[in-house]
Amino acid sequence: MSVAAELDENNPAPVKASLEPLMDLVKSDLDETNRIILDRMHSDVELIPTLARHLIAAGGKRLRPVLTLGSAKLCGYEGDRACKLAACVEFIHTATLLHDDVVDESDLRRGNETANVLWGNQASVLVGDFLFSRSFQLMVEDGSLDVLRILSNASAVIAEGEVLQLMNVGDITITQQSYLEVITAKTAALFEAACEVGAVVAGRSEEECKALAMYGNKLGIAFQLIDDALDYSAEQQALGKTIGDDFREGKVTLPVLLAYEQGTEEEKDFWKRVIEAEQSEEDLDQALDLIRKHDTLAATFEEAKRYGETAKSALDIFPDSPEKAALKAAVDFAVERAF
Amino acid sequence: MSVAAELDENNPAPVKASLEPLMDLVKSDLDETNRIILDRMHSDVELIPTLARHLIAAGGKRLRPVLTLGSAKLCGYEGDRACKLAACVEFIHTATLLHDDVVDESDLRRGNETANVLWGNQASVLVGDFLFSRSFQLMVEDGSLDVLRILSNASAVIAEGEVLQLMNVGDITITQQSYLEVITAKTAALFEAACEVGAVVAGRSEEECKALAMYGNKLGIAFQLIDDALDYSAEQQALGKTIGDDFREGKVTLPVLLAYEQGTEEEKDFWKRVIEAEQSEEDLDQALDLIRKHDTLAATFEEAKRYGETAKSALDIFPDSPEKAALKAAVDFAVERAF
Repeated sequence: MSVAAELDENNPAPVKASLEPLMDLVKSDLDETNRIILDRMHSDVELIPTLARHLIAAGGKRLRPVLTLGSAKLCGYEGDRACKLAACVEFIHTATLLHDDVVDESDLRRGNETANVLWGNQASVLVGDFLFSRSFQLMVEDGSLDVLRILSNASAVIAEGEVLQLMNVGDITITQQSYLEVITAKTAALFEAACEVGAVVAGRSEEECKALAMYGNKLGIAFQLIDDALDYSAEQQALGKTIGDDFREGKVTLPVLLAYEQGTEEEKDFWKRVIEAEQSEEDLDQALDLIRKHDTLAATFEEAKRYGETAKSALDIFPDSPEKAALKAAVDFAVERAF
Repeated sequence: MSVAAELDENNPAPVKASLEPLMDLVKSDLDETNRIILDRMHSDVELIPTLARHLIAAGGKRLRPVLTLGSAKLCGYEGDRACKLAACVEFIHTATLLHDDVVDESDLRRGNETANVLWGNQASVLVGDFLFSRSFQLMVEDGSLDVLRILSNASAVIAEGEVLQLMNVGDITITQQSYLEVITAKTAALFEAACEVGAVVAGRSEEECKALAMYGNKLGIAFQLIDDALDYSAEQQALGKTIGDDFREGKVTLPVLLAYEQGTEEEKDFWKRVIEAEQSEEDLDQALDLIRKHDTLAATFEEAKRYGETAKSALDIFPDSPEKAALKAAVDFAVERAF
């Protein structure tokens, strides 16, 4: 049964996989959020706005702040705090991107050279620290200890996830459990917090706050699973995107983990060598062949779809509304953007 | 007139330059603070406590948390919040040390190999992020928005200072003003916040909070001036400490800035070459000769002493007490530890 068909059952308006309905609903709030972001990333130390602009102005979909704004709207919130807190979420996300540039010598992000390549490790670390601190300054201005608790907890969990990922690099024998732990912490924790904050700012019940937290958590896991699949996607390669970054870094994600687990002894030896010892340019092609042979991108997609369905059902406690339908369509978008 | 003699004037009990009186006054609180630090730097992700322990357990003097505890005591505070907040201050300090390891490829800190050398840039960045987040989690537990405001502001200023320092690297023509801006932000801001928090937790008047903030700010500037002098100190070299780190990094500090400003054309050319272009092993010796020739370490010491005196007079609004005398003696210790 198609995703759209499933949606029909518990949703009057059939919604196809798209981020547009959500974007349309939060448009004016997102404009205000972007204004706050550009305003508050300012510093008299020129390199800070310059470098921050490089990532932030580059834009991207602002998925996380959009989730904060959409969650607040679902909860009927109409004040101006959500925009400020959405900016906090984006600042934390941008700080982690800057520190990721140090973490995984990724060469391209959103098609730009990374800040790291342009300004070096040191600037990436320090400007990330600035944006992280600025995010907490904004939360303090907002004055909600609940919001501060949610986002400081998320920040700690993200760091733990990134360190765990670092410890797993170059180890083909990690468990799916450990992989899931990593993506839940490094990615889903901020999606979860972004959505929960939307409910908290609207003063909703703990049950509703937890429901939106659950929605964000499962969506975040689905989102990262698809990201990890895209890093081996021929379609992406065809679009001129760099693929194989994770492979070159020895970062073991689900498509590789499944190919290894299902592989012949000979294939296992290949994976052991390229992930744990050394690899050459050509090895990526063989890795792609093995991933194709065991069809592990489809399996990763199916896994993402399962998490996406859990994310959507977390919204069941909310009455049907355009916001609810838009948040569900955003899940399908996150899952289906791959194919 | 000696520092001790000056102290006699506005202080009944003559106090010699020493950290001991302050350490003695806060001893039991410091033990509790260390217990909290060791307890709260725990994570199931092993590398985090391992790496954190490397810096934190290495200890050092815990100067910043000691200042929080001493300031709280000066203000007559007797509850248990100060220890937790002192731990927050130490976590922020440790996070900046970890990120500094990335920032300036320093080889030794407190005689140990830096975390960076042992575990790499990525681990240093991420564990720093974890400790920074953990610090905010502790503040949220404490529940004071004033404390959260003070320490989030300090964190943003520190990051700005570090970025400004980065922009100044390799530029011998920076002004003393710009140098002072850097050390005020990267070092004095946390000393200032550490002391102010002690007064805030004691619920003292804004005047008294500001007085302790001023004390911490001036003490922090004096402390960094001496640090910068020590990096060129023959005594340190004799003690087997590495010197010349700043020099090798092209970091222009007051001893060099003064030697450049007072130098002959030929000397200026030397400084231009070694700071802005390239340097060899032997250049450090010539740099030390020029610093000796113009006696700029003494001038830096005098500058530190002036800031130290301002720090001490900031305490004038407080009645004389063992705590006040101990905080003043700590200033003299910070200034005179050099010689």
